[in-house]
Order: sequence, then C-alpha cells, then structure tokens
Amino acid sequence: MAFHFEIIKGDSHSQARLGRIETSHGALTTPAFFPVGTQGTVKSLTPEELVEIGVEGILGNTYHLYLKPGHETIGRLGGLHRFIHWERPILTDSGGYQIFSLAKLRKITEEGVTFQSHIDGSQHFLTPEKVMEIQRALGSDIAMVLDECIPYPSSHEYVKASTRLTTLWAERCLKERRKDDPAFFGIVQGGMYRDLREESAGDLTRMDFQGYAIGGLSVGEPKSIMQNVLEWTAPVLPENRPRYLMGVGTPEDILHAVMQGIDLFDCVLPTRNARNGMLFTSKGKISIKQARYAEDPGPIDEACRCYACLNYSRAYLRHLYLANEILSARLNTIHNIYYYMKWMKGIRAAIQEGRLAEFYKAQISQMNEAPSDGAMYHQTAAC
Amino acid sequence: MAFHFEIIKGDSHSQARLGRIETSHGALTTPAFFPVGTQGTVKSLTPEELVEIGVEGILGNTYHLYLKPGHETIGRLGGLHRFIHWERPILTDSGGYQIFSLAKLRKITEEGVTFQSHIDGSQHFLTPEKVMEIQRALGSDIAMVLDECIPYPSSHEYVKASTRLTTLWAERCLKERRKDDPAFFGIVQGGMYRDLREESAGDLTRMDFQGYAIGGLSVGEPKSIMQNVLEWTAPVLPENRPRYLMGVGTPEDILHAVMQGIDLFDCVLPTRNARNGMLFTSKGKISIKQARYAEDPGPIDEACRCYACLNYSRAYLRHLYLANEILSARLNTIHNIYYYMKWMKGIRAAIQEGRLAEFYKAQISQMNEAPSDGAMYHQTAAC
Repeated sequence: MAFHFEIIKGDSHSQARLGRIETSHGALTTPAFFPVGTQGTVKSLTPEELVEIGVEGILGNTYHLYLKPGHETIGRLGGLHRFIHWERPILTDSGGYQIFSLAKLRKITEEGVTFQSHIDGSQHFLTPEKVMEIQRALGSDIAMVLDECIPYPSSHEYVKASTRLTTLWAERCLKERRKDDPAFFGIVQGGMYRDLREESAGDLTRMDFQGYAIGGLSVGEPKSIMQNVLEWTAPVLPENRPRYLMGVGTPEDILHAVMQGIDLFDCVLPTRNARNGMLFTSKGKISIKQARYAEDPGPIDEACRCYACLNYSRAYLRHLYLANEILSARLNTIHNIYYYMKWMKGIRAAIQEGRLAEFYKAQISQMNEAPSDGAMYHQTAAC
Repeated sequence: MAFHFEIIKGDSHSQARLGRIETSHGALTTPAFFPVGTQGTVKSLTPEELVEIGVEGILGNTYHLYLKPGHETIGRLGGLHRFIHWERPILTDSGGYQIFSLAKLRKITEEGVTFQSHIDGSQHFLTPEKVMEIQRALGSDIAMVLDECIPYPSSHEYVKASTRLTTLWAERCLKERRKDDPAFFGIVQGGMYRDLREESAGDLTRMDFQGYAIGGLSVGEPKSIMQNVLEWTAPVLPENRPRYLMGVGTPEDILHAVMQGIDLFDCVLPTRNARNGMLFTSKGKISIKQARYAEDPGPIDEACRCYACLNYSRAYLRHLYLANEILSARLNTIHNIYYYMKWMKGIRAAIQEGRLAEFYKAQISQMNEAPSDGAMYHQTAAC
C-alpha cells in the first residue's frame, strides 16, 4: 500500500509541524484527529456525514473486528473500506489496548497473548504475526504492531520486561513485512519511566518503521505524566516519520501534544461524550440534559456551523437526549466531531501562518475562563 | 390553518381514489402513508432524510408530546414543526390509543379521562377540549378529536356506551373549534359490531369534520374484522372528505384498505420492524440477523434504490445489527420507509393509470409466492 509522509512546515517556537500523509486511499493533512469506528462504524454516523464534517481518516479496532464479524469475513468481502463504505484512510490499532482493558484471563508469553473474548468467553491466541495478518485482511492504510499495554502504576522491573517484549515483537513484525502491507508503525512503551521510554523509542527508531506511535497513555495516570512522556519520547523519534499519540485526548491535550511534535491522534472522547450528552462549545463544555436548556431556543454553540447547530435548539436536543432517541446520538456526535475537526483546522492554520504560540495563548486562556455548567467528561481514561 | 381535499381520480373497479390534500405546510398526494414520529422524531432519521425518501407527512403522538417535553414548551418554542425541524404536514392523534395501551389506572367519565403517566406515574386529566388545546399548541395540520379506544373483544353493551361517549366528545370538539385550528377529524369507533360502526359513522358524518378517521383497529382482533369494519364504515363516510385508517398496517392491509376507499395511513410497522432487523423486499420479508447473510455481499433488495441498498451489503447490515450499532437502525429504517413510499407511489400510479385491479393481482400473487426466510412482524398489534 502506498504511504508517504512529508513535512510542509515546522513551527519556530515549538516542535509542531504541519505535514501531509499520502495513502492508497487519499491524503491526510497533519496534525490530524481520527474519530473512532470501533466496530466498523463511527457510532451513529454515515461515511458521507463524516466526509461532510471534514473527517479525513478514521480508526478501526483490530480486537473488535477480529472477534466480530472476523477479519476473514471482512477480507472475503473486499476489505474494511468496502465493507463499511468508507473510501478514505483507515488506521487500525494492534488490539493490545483492548486485550489489556476488555479481554479476560490474559496470559502473555514471548510467543504471544492468550485471552478470552469479552463477548462470549471464547479463547484466542494472538501473535505479532497474526496481528499483521488480521490488519492485512482488513486492508488498513496504517497498522500497528502488537504491543503490551502496561497498567498504571507498574514497577520499573515489570515495565522493563514488558517494554522489551514489545520491542521483540516489533522486530518479528519487521521480518514478516510484505511489499503490499499497510504502513506499520512501531509502538513506544516504557510506562512512566524516562529511561525505559527513551530505550523503547531508541530501539524502535533503529528499526525501519513507517511511523511511530506512543502507547500506554490514558490508562489512568495523572495528566502530568503524559506531558513528561512526550518530552522524553518525541525528540528521540525520527523527524521524517509521522508520530501518533494513541487514544488522546481532550482538545487541550491534543494542542499540547502537537507542540511536542505529534502528528496523529485518535480518541473516543468526542463520540462517546456526545452519546452521553456532553457537548463541546467555543464557550466551554455543556451537558445538554440540564434543566436550564429545557426551553432554550438557541443552538448548542452560536459560533458553530455544524448541521446540528444550524437546525436544532438546545431545547430539542435536551428533549431527544432525555427521551433516549437515536437522533440525539446522531446530532450530538455530528456536533462534537465537527468541533474537533474545526479545532484541528485551527491548529494547522496557526502552524501554517506561524502563529501557533498566539493560538495557544488565546485558546487556553479562553478555555480557562469559560463558564462551566458542570459538564464532565465521561470515562476519558478509556479512550 | 389551511386545509383542502380534492379527489383527482376514482378507480372504476374499487372504491379507491387518488386525491390531494393542501395544508399550510404543503400538499400531500393520497393515498398517503405517514411514518410515525412518536416523540418528535421518526426514530433514527433526520427530516432531510425523510424528504429524500419521499415522505410527505409524518405523525406525532399527542400523548407522548404532552407528557414530554410538554405541549406548552413546544408551543413557546414555535410549535412542533419548528421544534423538530420538519416543514411538511404533521398529523397528530388524540392520545386515545396511548391512554388505552400505555397509561395506567385509566378512569373514563363523560367529562374526560384520568390516567397515570407511564413514565413517572403522575396523574393527568384530559378532556376533549384539552386535547384540542394540546394539538393547537403543537400546531398540527391534521388533528384528531379525543376518542376512547375500545379493547378487543368487548361486549356490545360496552362498545355501544363507549362509542356514544366518543360521539359526544366529538360534538364538544366541534363547539370549541376556532378559525385557525388544525383540520379536526372525527374518529369512527364501534368495535366489531356492524350496527355500532354504522351508527358511529352516521352520527359523525352529520357533524362537519374536515376528515374522518377509523379507529379501534390493530388492537389484537383477527385480520378479517378489519376488512369487515372497512366494508361497513367507509361507504357511510362522505365522499368529499379524506378517510384515515389509524395505525394500519402491512403493505397488503394498506392496499386492501385503499380499495375500500381509504386515503391516509400511519403505522410504526416499517420503523419498529427496521429496528428489529426485519426488512421488506420485493421478494418478501427478510430477517437480517440470520446466519445465511453473514457473508452475503448483495444489497437488502436488488430492486431497491434506497441509500442502504445502494451502498451496503447484507453482510454489513447483519454485522451492524448483531453489534447493536445505531447505524443499523438508521439504514434499516431508511430502507423500510423507502419500501413503503415506493409501495404508496405504485398504488397511486395504478389508480392514476386505471390499472389498480391488475396491480393488486400482480402484487398479491408475488407476495404469496415470495420465499420466506422466516422473518416475522414484531408487535404489529401495537401500531
């Protein structure tokens, strides 16, 4: 599969860079955010809607698709793009995170991972090679090598052994790589330990991956750790390869990470929170179920031009949410993804125009001053 | 509100008629089928999607909207059309059916109905005048007078008293009618008794309603009763007023009723069954969850041009259904409503071109010959 990354412009005050990734399914401008389509659908939306909102790529979960409907079925039906009617780039993860967070009775050996399906308890054995085969059948544009996602907190000893296993698995992947494969990314692990993060990043950099992911974050660790890990890791990674921060995050997290040199993001935050009635606005987050919106004729956000904001009142959206209507999930999801796409567009424009530092100051101070209606993120740790 | 009905063409072999209803929110061609938007949304779809599928009017449930978010709230927000972003005709029922089927501890007196909400147990009292006031606040184009929906089976004595009460309530409504009101329809009751159906139809016909509904069907009675009731009732109703068969039904039921002279229909059948994975096709009903579709690359129906059939395989739709994905409800609902709209269009074209008898023969024999995969209607009685 075709894969090419180029940096269009670097930022002079930070590590941020504006870039472009070409794939067999079209191009992406980076920094980019990929909405999550866990089971072969970005929950509640059609591909046409995603395109209209400005989404350039989506993430599919290898673990979920392997279990249901099965990568072989998807392969026989022409691959994931055709199966789900999405013609643009697809990034798939390695399943490591879901085996860690969803599956039961995990047993990890050097050979691979044995686990029980969270759906029906059936037993499965995944190796680095098998995970490549699954992503090949899916026809992903960007694929991840198998990693062990490490719980937080874990001892230095445990993290050291686990990270070396992930590195070993990465080597095995490289050996198995075929000409028409997706672009495989190595995943930097190392927990919250500087030496191990640097070692992992260094080891993987010496291998020729088409991109590098930073994993093992958003597993319940304090916010400051993410910042530290990025500071230790990003500088070690090769300049000319895309860097992907897995499972992150809030708009603020993304902006911080972009300034550390990250190019790609994915997170369930905008979509999952939409379904829980939490909406992003230019004046802070709101929780649409609140009584104060019962007869509010205004849109979610006066500054937003998404389909939900152009056509529906907060009062109606509150009614749909409380009535548990499917249209609630749709309209809220459209709005939140639109917000994220606008956010990424703003970041890219700021890098392009050499004003990322100003953008950062203006946005962060506005976020800090935003009046809150008490809206809270739902399960951010499970991104 | 504007309301005008004209018959464009009658059928020479049956009582069927092609007609046109003009309302303040645009025109409808009859025979017409209204998808049900119980809580101010046709479950899972946007108004734009409904328009694209060819829907000309939808039904809203007075009982549900009165309880949540409340007719006064909807009124203050500019009426139901504006609240839900639907600019075409809206028909609202009287709430009688839901009070009968959903509410608890009903008590009916000549003055009105006392009942407990199925949501929170709160007590409510609705009179014929109050039901008019609710539908006025909603801004319905076509509204129903309060009726008592009679359980099946009921004694002649009970049905007689109940039907007379419905007639009495209809008289009270007429007295309260204002110039700008929706077009109010009287509702013929009378259970499965010929004398009472004829009496009810005759009494209401002597009052000047803008249309006539036939109620009290789809309450668990055998299929043959519907046919009998239509034969007794329709001929008594005035030729120059639209006739509405409430809560009906299957495509076959609709075709039979059109041939008895019915102009309007509504039913949850296409939408509710879509959410349960039952899909209508030109070769019979199918149940999308069946294993035989696991790797079926074809569309739901080769003969269908709906968005779901043009872009997705049965295999993907089965996967979405089994994975409990919201997109499953959307795509299935689009397909089933499209099927109903095409069905109504076929009926109208057949009347227009004087070949309804041939249409009937061809369609019914095709339905009888269709191979079944065992798909069953879900809860048809609760239309």
